[in-house]
Amino acid sequence: MAGDGSDQRALQYEQTLMYGRYTQELGVFAKEEAARLRESGQRRSISERSRNLDLLEYDKGRCAKCRRSGYPYVLEPPPQDFISVCTVRCQKFLISRVGEDWIFLILLGLVMALVSWVVDFCIAICLQAQKWMYGGLDSNVFLQYLAWVTYPVVLITFSAGFTQILAPQAVGSGIPEMKTILRGVVLKEYLTFKTFVAKVIGLTCALGSGMPLGKEGPFVHIASLCAALLSKFMSLFGGIYENESRNIEMLAAACAVGVGCCFAAPIGGVLFSIEVTSTFFAVRNYWRGFFAATFSAFIFRVLAVWNRDEETITALFKTRFRLDFPFDLQELPAFAVIGIASGFGGALFVYLNRLIVQFIRNQKAINRFLMKKRLLYPALITLLVSTLTFPPGFGQFMAGKLTQKESLVTLLDNRTWAKQGIAEEFDFMGHSQAWQHPQVNVFVTLVIFIVMKFWMSALATTIPVPCGAFMPVFVIGAAFGRLVGESMAAWFPDGINTDGTIYPIVPGGYAVVGAAALSGAVTHTVSTAVIVFELTGQISHILPVMIAVILANAVAQSLQPSLYDSIIRIKKLPYLPELGWGHHEKYNIRVEDIMVRDVRYITLSCCYRDLHNVLLTGQLKTLALVESAASMILLGSIERAQLQALLSLQLGRSRRMEFIRERAAAEKKRQSVVSSSDNEDNLHRASQEVRFQISTEESTISPTRPVALKPLKPALKRPSAVERPIDIPIGSQNHSNSSSLKNLFCASPDAELMEDDDVEDDMTLREIADWEEMQLDEQVNFNNCKIDPAPFQLVERTSLHKTHTIFSLLGLDHAYVTSIGRLIGVVSLKELRKAIEGSVTVKGVKVRPPLASFRESGTSSSENEATELHKLWDRQKSITSLPGERTPSESDEKSQ
Amino acid sequence: MAGDGSDQRALQYEQTLMYGRYTQELGVFAKEEAARLRESGQRRSISERSRNLDLLEYDKGRCAKCRRSGYPYVLEPPPQDFISVCTVRCQKFLISRVGEDWIFLILLGLVMALVSWVVDFCIAICLQAQKWMYGGLDSNVFLQYLAWVTYPVVLITFSAGFTQILAPQAVGSGIPEMKTILRGVVLKEYLTFKTFVAKVIGLTCALGSGMPLGKEGPFVHIASLCAALLSKFMSLFGGIYENESRNIEMLAAACAVGVGCCFAAPIGGVLFSIEVTSTFFAVRNYWRGFFAATFSAFIFRVLAVWNRDEETITALFKTRFRLDFPFDLQELPAFAVIGIASGFGGALFVYLNRLIVQFIRNQKAINRFLMKKRLLYPALITLLVSTLTFPPGFGQFMAGKLTQKESLVTLLDNRTWAKQGIAEEFDFMGHSQAWQHPQVNVFVTLVIFIVMKFWMSALATTIPVPCGAFMPVFVIGAAFGRLVGESMAAWFPDGINTDGTIYPIVPGGYAVVGAAALSGAVTHTVSTAVIVFELTGQISHILPVMIAVILANAVAQSLQPSLYDSIIRIKKLPYLPELGWGHHEKYNIRVEDIMVRDVRYITLSCCYRDLHNVLLTGQLKTLALVESAASMILLGSIERAQLQALLSLQLGRSRRMEFIRERAAAEKKRQSVVSSSDNEDNLHRASQEVRFQISTEESTISPTRPVALKPLKPALKRPSAVERPIDIPIGSQNHSNSSSLKNLFCASPDAELMEDDDVEDDMTLREIADWEEMQLDEQVNFNNCKIDPAPFQLVERTSLHKTHTIFSLLGLDHAYVTSIGRLIGVVSLKELRKAIEGSVTVKGVKVRPPLASFRESGTSSSENEATELHKLWDRQKSITSLPGERTPSESDEKSQ
Repeated sequence: MAGDGSDQRALQYEQTLMYGRYTQELGVFAKEEAARLRESGQRRSISERSRNLDLLEYDKGRCAKCRRSGYPYVLEPPPQDFISVCTVRCQKFLISRVGEDWIFLILLGLVMALVSWVVDFCIAICLQAQKWMYGGLDSNVFLQYLAWVTYPVVLITFSAGFTQILAPQAVGSGIPEMKTILRGVVLKEYLTFKTFVAKVIGLTCALGSGMPLGKEGPFVHIASLCAALLSKFMSLFGGIYENESRNIEMLAAACAVGVGCCFAAPIGGVLFSIEVTSTFFAVRNYWRGFFAATFSAFIFRVLAVWNRDEETITALFKTRFRLDFPFDLQELPAFAVIGIASGFGGALFVYLNRLIVQFIRNQKAINRFLMKKRLLYPALITLLVSTLTFPPGFGQFMAGKLTQKESLVTLLDNRTWAKQGIAEEFDFMGHSQAWQHPQVNVFVTLVIFIVMKFWMSALATTIPVPCGAFMPVFVIGAAFGRLVGESMAAWFPDGINTDGTIYPIVPGGYAVVGAAALSGAVTHTVSTAVIVFELTGQISHILPVMIAVILANAVAQSLQPSLYDSIIRIKKLPYLPELGWGHHEKYNIRVEDIMVRDVRYITLSCCYRDLHNVLLTGQLKTLALVESAASMILLGSIERAQLQALLSLQLGRSRRMEFIRERAAAEKKRQSVVSSSDNEDNLHRASQEVRFQISTEESTISPTRPVALKPLKPALKRPSAVERPIDIPIGSQNHSNSSSLKNLFCASPDAELMEDDDVEDDMTLREIADWEEMQLDEQVNFNNCKIDPAPFQLVERTSLHKTHTIFSLLGLDHAYVTSIGRLIGVVSLKELRKAIEGSVTVKGVKVRPPLASFRESGTSSSENEATELHKLWDRQKSITSLPGERTPSESDEKSQ
Repeated sequence: MAGDGSDQRALQYEQTLMYGRYTQELGVFAKEEAARLRESGQRRSISERSRNLDLLEYDKGRCAKCRRSGYPYVLEPPPQDFISVCTVRCQKFLISRVGEDWIFLILLGLVMALVSWVVDFCIAICLQAQKWMYGGLDSNVFLQYLAWVTYPVVLITFSAGFTQILAPQAVGSGIPEMKTILRGVVLKEYLTFKTFVAKVIGLTCALGSGMPLGKEGPFVHIASLCAALLSKFMSLFGGIYENESRNIEMLAAACAVGVGCCFAAPIGGVLFSIEVTSTFFAVRNYWRGFFAATFSAFIFRVLAVWNRDEETITALFKTRFRLDFPFDLQELPAFAVIGIASGFGGALFVYLNRLIVQFIRNQKAINRFLMKKRLLYPALITLLVSTLTFPPGFGQFMAGKLTQKESLVTLLDNRTWAKQGIAEEFDFMGHSQAWQHPQVNVFVTLVIFIVMKFWMSALATTIPVPCGAFMPVFVIGAAFGRLVGESMAAWFPDGINTDGTIYPIVPGGYAVVGAAALSGAVTHTVSTAVIVFELTGQISHILPVMIAVILANAVAQSLQPSLYDSIIRIKKLPYLPELGWGHHEKYNIRVEDIMVRDVRYITLSCCYRDLHNVLLTGQLKTLALVESAASMILLGSIERAQLQALLSLQLGRSRRMEFIRERAAAEKKRQSVVSSSDNEDNLHRASQEVRFQISTEESTISPTRPVALKPLKPALKRPSAVERPIDIPIGSQNHSNSSSLKNLFCASPDAELMEDDDVEDDMTLREIADWEEMQLDEQVNFNNCKIDPAPFQLVERTSLHKTHTIFSLLGLDHAYVTSIGRLIGVVSLKELRKAIEGSVTVKGVKVRPPLASFRESGTSSSENEATELHKLWDRQKSITSLPGERTPSESDEKSQ
């Protein structure tokens, strides 16, 4: 993968599906393309050049959707017409009085609490319906099996189909995408109303099926969707809802609301959302998250009281452990063991999940088959899982008839199941009975439950429906903790304490610790500790939980990326890996060790031909603008799209028509009057006069008016799709603006076919070639080009550590390396990624994080495995790819 | 207050004392100085110029201690000699294996847990001793009173004296200073061993006196001290303990440890420390805080178990509220009332605290008296407070005989004191008896307790001993919550719930809510909610606590800055105010509205005279380096100190001695050989040849070798005191280096008195003047000057919101505003502060936050009240102040 453009492309390809949807077509296309190129050989015909130009435009058009930008999402300007002036005034008064952040956050909390409650309610009904069907058919095991299996298959298939048709972006957890969006990457389709509907309905059906799936990740996405839509709605009433910074802040708050209203855990929600979505968090925004999440959690629980489910507001999975002596100091090693084992388990889960995705992607036969029957994959997996959990069948050994919620409640029970290792001694009540089997020990049931649920969850989360993995992992963790706890209880039937009073061991406390540790290990977060306290309503086990979570994190982080980062890599979203635990080598690597010294740049005095060449060879989205090739003083950076627009304008049809018109007029004039053929020259001179006036002799950028008055882009703000270069036309070309603009922005093949009405394109290909050659030799006019006058700069001695900090702080994707104003290199996310992941050698030593060898097979492999096809493809992609074809190369997939 | 230099100066003056220690001397000095200047008039004699120069040097010397820098503190290079090579290797192996962050954090946690436990133990002994004395003398009330009063007076006086003598930096909470240090400001003396000792012993004595003081703030400071010292110690064994970024990260973790081991609250500790010290937090560092704080809290509680205080690890102030029905939904309005009232109370507390400080400062008579008898103030306040709490006296109405800890335990009691409003019905037990008074209702006792403790705490925290205000405020909040709870219990004796079962109201729950709300309001944090859960070991009241804390924060934040920000302003540490709640005007202000357009700059081709003038007029710590006055292309920025060094070198004694020597040699040569007088010219030419080679004709900074090879300062990293310009000497001046360096760095008056041994300074004043004039006309040689090649740049259109974000993200204190490379303005913290605090008018409207009028009298007053004396002083300060005199102006104090 060369350059940052690869990320951008990846965004388009693999956005929703994790199992290589277009792989087959890509291979075919690439081969065809290669053959075609070989045929046409090296000749650089006029047609090819103009074709390149078109493709540059297409590229721009395609990129607009997912272009990196300061804006998290793009809002249409609100229609102001249908609101009366009076309402607007009232609204404005209200807004200025109350402070619109409050209103927004309260509304967001309210809506999300309602959504969460309704979704929970529907899921509960779905699950009850399945139980009712299963229970009603107890006369015939086969009918029972059919009912048990058909119901989830239908629901999951419906969910997958519905999501696929309405908004494929709704598939999966949503946390990886939110992390990417909060980094400043625009994933526009991810925050639309269609996605919202697809996600909510898809999620309800998926969870209603009883598969081991969670609602947490999707709720983060739903809350963000909700915030985005609410912003859009509120912007109808005026206010500052279009502001980019504000929107990012609100999205961050929305993520907190998502977790908060899902678990009724405001504090844990805020912390968890910070940990999984941010690298740097503004403490300033803290209150937003707390405020909205608290309100949301409050309403969510009030709804339960109102529905008579509860008597008052309490925790979701309330535990009743004794307060006076929650655990003995000597139990701590057992808790530590849970933590370490959970760390390995969490890493294994992430690895397994990725392995399944890659296996299905890489097996061409499977892949081709699944591509054709797109709903077969979900159906098959559901069939497999539900068959295995069928209670009269294998399910009897793994408490198969319990729903996820029931399992968790029983696992957190404060009574001990197994005294002295004999399960029968205990009087099982209610749902706990499911864990009891006449022939089999409760330990065996737990072990089978853990093992089966482990791979089932890893498998189920690859189904293309809206679903998360947090809750299944949480339950598995609780089961593991329970297992350890029951073992301890069997080992020390009278507790460990020797000071007189008998305090028996509480296996439920172990379950709490296990749940927090495993979910913490999978997500690489510490705040799962807080979530379990809020979920159980008890904080007595705080120290064991914290110890286990920290140990689990330490182990898991050194083995695997987090589940969300793993998905980010699978989906090829742009990312920046975290600096690991205590790798002090990072402090010794300097920017000069990792920077690319061969920077693509354009000079102030370059001609269009240089521009053309640079655009064809480079991959970066922005190009450095230097004063001259000799001085290399960095003046700013220009976006690729801007330069493409400049070039298109210069070589575009409208300008050519203008030329033809001029020539025709000149011809006419010459026929009437003599010596009027320098008209065209005048034109050129005129356009050159308004040019950005740099007198290279004096090294002075004199403050010319057009430059000074231009609304320059603020530093660090990349233009959104809205900020297209509207004011490209120069000087006397006014009257052909409309067509030129269309040409620029529609970028559809038929725009080229449009005809001016007054003159006819009578130029031959030969003439066009000559004209184009002539145009290319002109000096570039940067007058109407948006230049970022303060691109981020580093110096050679900046450490990798600091560079990483700056990149994640400011959400940069590249930075220039300068030495007293002179441009000497560039560092992009890619170089940084490479350096952090340890493929850079500094001072002769291969620097890599400890335990990296464990990780290697999974994540940082095959940077050099690119095939010839890949290289060819990479080279040609910017030139030859067609806009309709969103096709990843096979080697792309391998190299993740 | 003009320019950023004011902050710097403030650092020196008011670092430790809040009540204007040097005010009197300053007035005298200023008047004398003004008289002297009037006398000497406008004549610019040689002596004055060289004096200025000396003062510039002094200034630099003085500033080195508290210079803004990327380094939080400066470490001496470790002596490597006494460790054998073998040990080093073993150590290195261990470090590379285990990961030194772990070791460091574990050590830090361990040490801090021990310190916390020992301090607690000593405090408990002190308090017991007081009780024992008081109890033993119950035959005679007067003797009892004497014992009750003398004991705390002696302890506080000792604490104040000890701290004052050993390390005045140890006074106060330490959180404001840590916030400043974590912003990147160097407050060197704040992290020394002496301060550590002073803080620990001072704190123990102060808290042992039983005054309403807390240990939380000081513990944040102690933990940071501990981290700094541990870093220093660990750096003896090699490793990367000198790295600046790492040290900042470790300090942030240390703050978490401080809170964590103080309350045994790891999660709350991490969150609280983030909220009070950071504006942007790296999620990457999260684990460090959690890890160290958990370990520390664990050890802290294990020590209690080991000491047989507890049976197992539990919460510090364990509560036993019922779990099944903690509160009714209909009680929520009461909780909301607690929140709102606490918000007002918190703001009042901050205001009261500041008022006391300002009153004492401004009353000259009091001030002068207190200056003389420095220990009288603490003694007087202690006398007042302990007299009022004397149990047989007024103390009987306010539970005076309870210590802070006992009060808190009784307030969080889960039983109801007052049923039906009649206190006597309840059987008071143990410490709770203190709240019962035969004549007076329990409500009256609570009200008196709240009112008295409120002003006592505000007053006591102004005593110059190491102390915090968190715990007193926490107790007052708990009392207020209890008051509301008892009222509710009296109002609804059978609880509010109407569904059959009687659930009486739990006043202890109200106390928890009140404690969290009031401490949250005073500190502007939400994480006090988490702290109370961890302190009480129960999370059942999560929703009421969250609601109350958020409401309290909303109210308090709109009325007053937080207690820590208030102290930062009182102490005049550099700060950046937070953007308030939902002030959307912030999004519309642009940098161009607030920037200073009249930027002080130096050009590449300037001569020393320009440098001299710029240094005398400007106040900013860094100066912009532009290519030329015409082009204004920003090349970088140079620190003031660097330029001062350049100028000193050019005009310094050593160079003059060199000149004299040359002249003498030339004289000698002329006596022997003819025509050797151009020697000196050669010298000058030689030194000019190595000069930074810019050919202004070609606008090219050609990559000359000396520039390319120089280790340039990384972006965003400001040099520490270690990075002094060691390599100033040029060319042939080698042999006079030592004296010149001494001259530069010692900056003591007697350095000037040192004599070269070989030649005598036989120049007359007239000759020196001529020589200096000649020197000043030379072009500046920037060759050995450290230039920051990438100072932070903004553009005119950057919004205030984004500017604020960038400033707080990167800890900047100024940024240049450029337009395509041209420097057009500068924005410093001061401008930003002004703009945020609402004294900037944009588009004709005075922009100010809502409710700002409440705040005005306290915080943003008198920007224009500067007196003539002030102006004079401000103007002359950079020229005339003497190094020994740390003297703030009176008007400085007023204008905060």
